[in-house]
Amino acid sequence: MDEVEQDLRGLRPALVSVEVVGIAMVVLVSIWTGHCMGGFSGSDDANLVFNWHPLLMVISLVFLYGNGILVYRVARHERKSRLKVAHAVVMGSATLLAFFGLKAVFDFHSEKEIPHTYSLHSWLGLMAVSLAVLQWILGLVTFLFPGLASHLRKALLPVHVFTGLAVFILAAVTALLGITEKAIFRDKDKEFSYKDGGGEATVVNLLGISIVVFVVLILAIVTRQSFRRLNMAEDQMLLTEGHAE
Amino acid sequence: MDEVEQDLRGLRPALVSVEVVGIAMVVLVSIWTGHCMGGFSGSDDANLVFNWHPLLMVISLVFLYGNGILVYRVARHERKSRLKVAHAVVMGSATLLAFFGLKAVFDFHSEKEIPHTYSLHSWLGLMAVSLAVLQWILGLVTFLFPGLASHLRKALLPVHVFTGLAVFILAAVTALLGITEKAIFRDKDKEFSYKDGGGEATVVNLLGISIVVFVVLILAIVTRQSFRRLNMAEDQMLLTEGHAE
Repeated sequence: MDEVEQDLRGLRPALVSVEVVGIAMVVLVSIWTGHCMGGFSGSDDANLVFNWHPLLMVISLVFLYGNGILVYRVARHERKSRLKVAHAVVMGSATLLAFFGLKAVFDFHSEKEIPHTYSLHSWLGLMAVSLAVLQWILGLVTFLFPGLASHLRKALLPVHVFTGLAVFILAAVTALLGITEKAIFRDKDKEFSYKDGGGEATVVNLLGISIVVFVVLILAIVTRQSFRRLNMAEDQMLLTEGHAE
Repeated sequence: MDEVEQDLRGLRPALVSVEVVGIAMVVLVSIWTGHCMGGFSGSDDANLVFNWHPLLMVISLVFLYGNGILVYRVARHERKSRLKVAHAVVMGSATLLAFFGLKAVFDFHSEKEIPHTYSLHSWLGLMAVSLAVLQWILGLVTFLFPGLASHLRKALLPVHVFTGLAVFILAAVTALLGITEKAIFRDKDKEFSYKDGGGEATVVNLLGISIVVFVVLILAIVTRQSFRRLNMAEDQMLLTEGHAE
């Protein structure tokens, strides 16, 4: 297959940049929901129930999902079996957390008598969450438990990588659409003026930009051949040399 | 480098699917702007001036840009020098056409006294267009005219491919944000009810879905190693054998 030599120069600064941008993104969505939009509530105030939605979706299917993709690049010296479990746990937790984020918006719509899934945001969001669940189950069965035969795993890996990245990008795109929707709805309800700029408008746009930069950096890292972890043949070598398991 | 064997099974149905979805996308944006939103005007009615914006942006930086990316897969038996010129012409035309699309929305904002670049859509859109211009100029200088030394071209090709795909995705994302914005503004102005579904709401959401599917199909085709065109070494071989130029 594609045996490009490993060359890790630039990996560390790239990973540091991803985490700086990712944390900025989580801070920005926290400021927007927790401060600008008035904070959180379990059930009393529908608007404050809603605020869990952007917060949890950005943390789950953008921040955690993105970090789960990076597991093989970050913890590259761990045994492959451990990396697989770590990857599955992060992706599974992210997908589970997304359901709490979905519950918040369905509760909000029910309370306010707003139709549930009329917008492009909702259609793409349901696609993203359904595909994330499917991707997790197929990934588990193929690569971990029970795990298919070696030649099948090898053939399916590029498919798993492509669909995983597609789900990640789709989730991020859905977040951008949701942020735009909410900003315009709040402008319409005179809760702030998007058109006139100022604090909340800046938070909204910077949150969007941080999501785009986070995704681009992760794509740049994982598509760079020379950053790839040494492949299974070499795990096998280590095994026979008695360094692992 | 990554010398995966060429295997073109599946390429033709994939290309047919891309064009079917791409044409559906152009038809949907034409129906939305030309029919639902009332058609086009050069300068008389600001709303009809605006309608050029979604139409031209979807045709230029999504449909044409996506097809420009596919040039090396579609016309794979042409000489490389011709493919480069074709690629540059399609990408250049797409970028140029995008400026007419931009002009339409700036004219609309001026006429309606709406601030020009306050939204996330506008920030990302300006990023996408600026990067498309930069990408075209750097691509021309690096690969075509004057063209850098062979080892530099080889080293810069993965960068050119990555940034080109990033610009394409960013343009498509910006289109989705713009479509969402306009749908909500029209709902707010009581020009149709997005929340209640029906004809225009369906056109809007299907347009969004068609953009997503168009992008995913193109990414699937161009990232598939076995669909890549035979590389320069083989052009060179053809040359020495006297088959080309």
